[in-house]
Amino acid sequence: MRLSRYFLPTLKETPSEAQIASHRLMLRAGMIRQSSAGIYSWLPLGFRVLKRIEQIVREEQNAIGCHEILMPTIQPADLWRESKRYDAYGPEMLRITDRHERDMLYGPTNEEQITDIFRTTVRSYRHLPKLLYHIQWKFRDEIRPRFGVMRGREFLMKDAYSFDIDKAGARLSYNKMFVSYLRTFERLGLKAIPMKAESGPIGGDMSHEFLILADTGESEIAYHRDLLNIDLTKRDIDFDGNLQPIVDTFTLKYAATDQERDPVTEKNLGENLVTGRGVEVGHIFYFGTKYSKAMNALVTGPDGDEVMVEMGSYGIGVSRLVGGIIEASHDEAGIIWPESVAPFKVGLINLKSNDADCDTACEGMYDALGKAGVDVLYDDRGERAGVKFTDMDLIGLPWQLIAGPRGLKAGTVEVKCRKTGERQEVSIDSALSMLSQ
Amino acid sequence: MRLSRYFLPTLKETPSEAQIASHRLMLRAGMIRQSSAGIYSWLPLGFRVLKRIEQIVREEQNAIGCHEILMPTIQPADLWRESKRYDAYGPEMLRITDRHERDMLYGPTNEEQITDIFRTTVRSYRHLPKLLYHIQWKFRDEIRPRFGVMRGREFLMKDAYSFDIDKAGARLSYNKMFVSYLRTFERLGLKAIPMKAESGPIGGDMSHEFLILADTGESEIAYHRDLLNIDLTKRDIDFDGNLQPIVDTFTLKYAATDQERDPVTEKNLGENLVTGRGVEVGHIFYFGTKYSKAMNALVTGPDGDEVMVEMGSYGIGVSRLVGGIIEASHDEAGIIWPESVAPFKVGLINLKSNDADCDTACEGMYDALGKAGVDVLYDDRGERAGVKFTDMDLIGLPWQLIAGPRGLKAGTVEVKCRKTGERQEVSIDSALSMLSQ
Repeated sequence: MRLSRYFLPTLKETPSEAQIASHRLMLRAGMIRQSSAGIYSWLPLGFRVLKRIEQIVREEQNAIGCHEILMPTIQPADLWRESKRYDAYGPEMLRITDRHERDMLYGPTNEEQITDIFRTTVRSYRHLPKLLYHIQWKFRDEIRPRFGVMRGREFLMKDAYSFDIDKAGARLSYNKMFVSYLRTFERLGLKAIPMKAESGPIGGDMSHEFLILADTGESEIAYHRDLLNIDLTKRDIDFDGNLQPIVDTFTLKYAATDQERDPVTEKNLGENLVTGRGVEVGHIFYFGTKYSKAMNALVTGPDGDEVMVEMGSYGIGVSRLVGGIIEASHDEAGIIWPESVAPFKVGLINLKSNDADCDTACEGMYDALGKAGVDVLYDDRGERAGVKFTDMDLIGLPWQLIAGPRGLKAGTVEVKCRKTGERQEVSIDSALSMLSQ
Repeated sequence: MRLSRYFLPTLKETPSEAQIASHRLMLRAGMIRQSSAGIYSWLPLGFRVLKRIEQIVREEQNAIGCHEILMPTIQPADLWRESKRYDAYGPEMLRITDRHERDMLYGPTNEEQITDIFRTTVRSYRHLPKLLYHIQWKFRDEIRPRFGVMRGREFLMKDAYSFDIDKAGARLSYNKMFVSYLRTFERLGLKAIPMKAESGPIGGDMSHEFLILADTGESEIAYHRDLLNIDLTKRDIDFDGNLQPIVDTFTLKYAATDQERDPVTEKNLGENLVTGRGVEVGHIFYFGTKYSKAMNALVTGPDGDEVMVEMGSYGIGVSRLVGGIIEASHDEAGIIWPESVAPFKVGLINLKSNDADCDTACEGMYDALGKAGVDVLYDDRGERAGVKFTDMDLIGLPWQLIAGPRGLKAGTVEVKCRKTGERQEVSIDSALSMLSQ
């Protein structure tokens, strides 16, 4: 993509309303624009990151046999009356009356809707277990929206739902999601720690939050040092096998959010205790028959009797993750994208646009990288070098490829790693082969 | 995908509420479930088709240098008060009051919102032309929703917006979209004909609808026979070049919807006149400074003066296309998907599940096709052959690969083309190589 033709309205000044790093940087990097309080438009750069995260979440859900569907944003109030949540939910639910005076709502979550789909389509235990998910916009009418996409009103969420014939099956589904979430966050370049959680308005009796480590995170957390050193990406996991040992690796170690911390345990941990801050990016719940009972979601069991299905729900905040990743990965100059979610892999900087040598070299590298399937943002604008450096650091692409008249005379360009700041002067061919890997 | 593990709740009986073919077939094929009047959940099979269509639309928008963004579903009423459309729009607009008593609405379209983004980010003619689009759910509170996803209330739409410094530039943008739309519909396996249209509530003075031919279409249409024979997919189009000759190829021939038909012209056309029915799937508008004037969207021109930008908007009904394609392509037995949007390319039918030979052969073919990157839905259920044939015809995958005990003894399987009904008995190797192409 040529920056001269792109739509990347970066800001020089920090918007005064932004209190935290991710909000500031997303506005400054031209990723989002506020539409109204807590509601944002995603501009091209932000949209690309959102889609990359969504795709990784999708792939990891598909990998455990979870089927993607798409439920609408607007739900009938009657479904929520069946579960008794319509009145219980409070003013965070955006209530709507349609032209025929029917009560509707903008879904903040989808337990009722998925239970309704299930009860009208699945009749027999032979079709269980069933895992279904969707990635859809939700609305929660926060009284004081803030922190940009971290606590917005309209937000993109992946929510999955499991249906099992009994508690043992539900535990298997829960474990699948538990391990799948850890892999998902690892692929996103994040260190996530699962922590025992309250179920809140979803209800139920087994629940974990997943928090990513970020100095600027909203919650204070404390955990066993060993939890930092588990890497699942290198393991070949059989999701149809017994996942309990992997789950235990995490749950048997101490990890607690602010409200759940235990001073005695922490004291005993001694040097193994780590404290810090975190951002919640996922939450999983087992809630048994809470909704199947209220909404009469029954299947025929092996012996012919009707059985209420055991359910769980599993959320990942997709739009929130964009902010969460920035909280976990930025510096004074701007964002530092993990390669898996970066909007472009390489930022190509032409230090002297309209200089024939520079233009020729840059066009050649832009073409070559494009042909190698590398996503490149080419700063071909007629701006000063300083402006280009500042913008490129701000938007945080993992690699910068810098070409100027002096280096080109000597046959070299510069490759800069955004994360480490390390710079190498290399030949064009070497640069292309490094960046095409 | 193994059908035994998939979520494909097909229906034997035709739901009484479905009046048209696509609505009937989408319900029967387990593609959608109604949530409330005019609002649907997309089940896995329907979701896959929706995503394929969305991806083709996206690729063709990107190909003309249109940048993808994502605007929220909920908009502030104040933006629509600026354009004077808030009161003008009528009860089809879903009006919402948030917890702070602010007037909001669920966007039926996004002219105001994109104009607001533009006016706060683009200041100079040097950044024009600019083409921006998003693919987002919209809401129109139809008084009597019907025809399934063809006239739903919550629907997925691609809407693009162009910004140019003058009328000549706006015409270039309009032509780009015009030609891009024809290619998009061709890639979707559709014959679409552009027809001069009224601008309606969007406003403006140049507008075309794109209708696809379908015997069961909602509108009566008449057009010159030559329009059936133009194929743009084979042409290498330079979208930065002069597209007027291509546009003229279409617009200089007679083509009219019901309201616009002209008996005199039609009589003169004689044998070149074709009449039939069509489904509207796209609509493009040039409306000049209607919104930039109302909302003060100005840029600095080459001579330093402030200029109101010239705008256009360009819609494709993505969810509507799912129904439109079915209207254009089905028979008594079910849907016939064009290969480009089919949820799976091949339906593999095991005529005798639990027979060792059949299972071995089918598992082998399923693996081989998967490795070749072919999307296969494998009917491994313990159902009778008749049920499997009926379901496979109903869901309309382009190719069926059928393996039974008798054929396998002779070393053959059957390959059936869903569209022509043609069947071939071939060796397993031949079948695999035919279907891997």
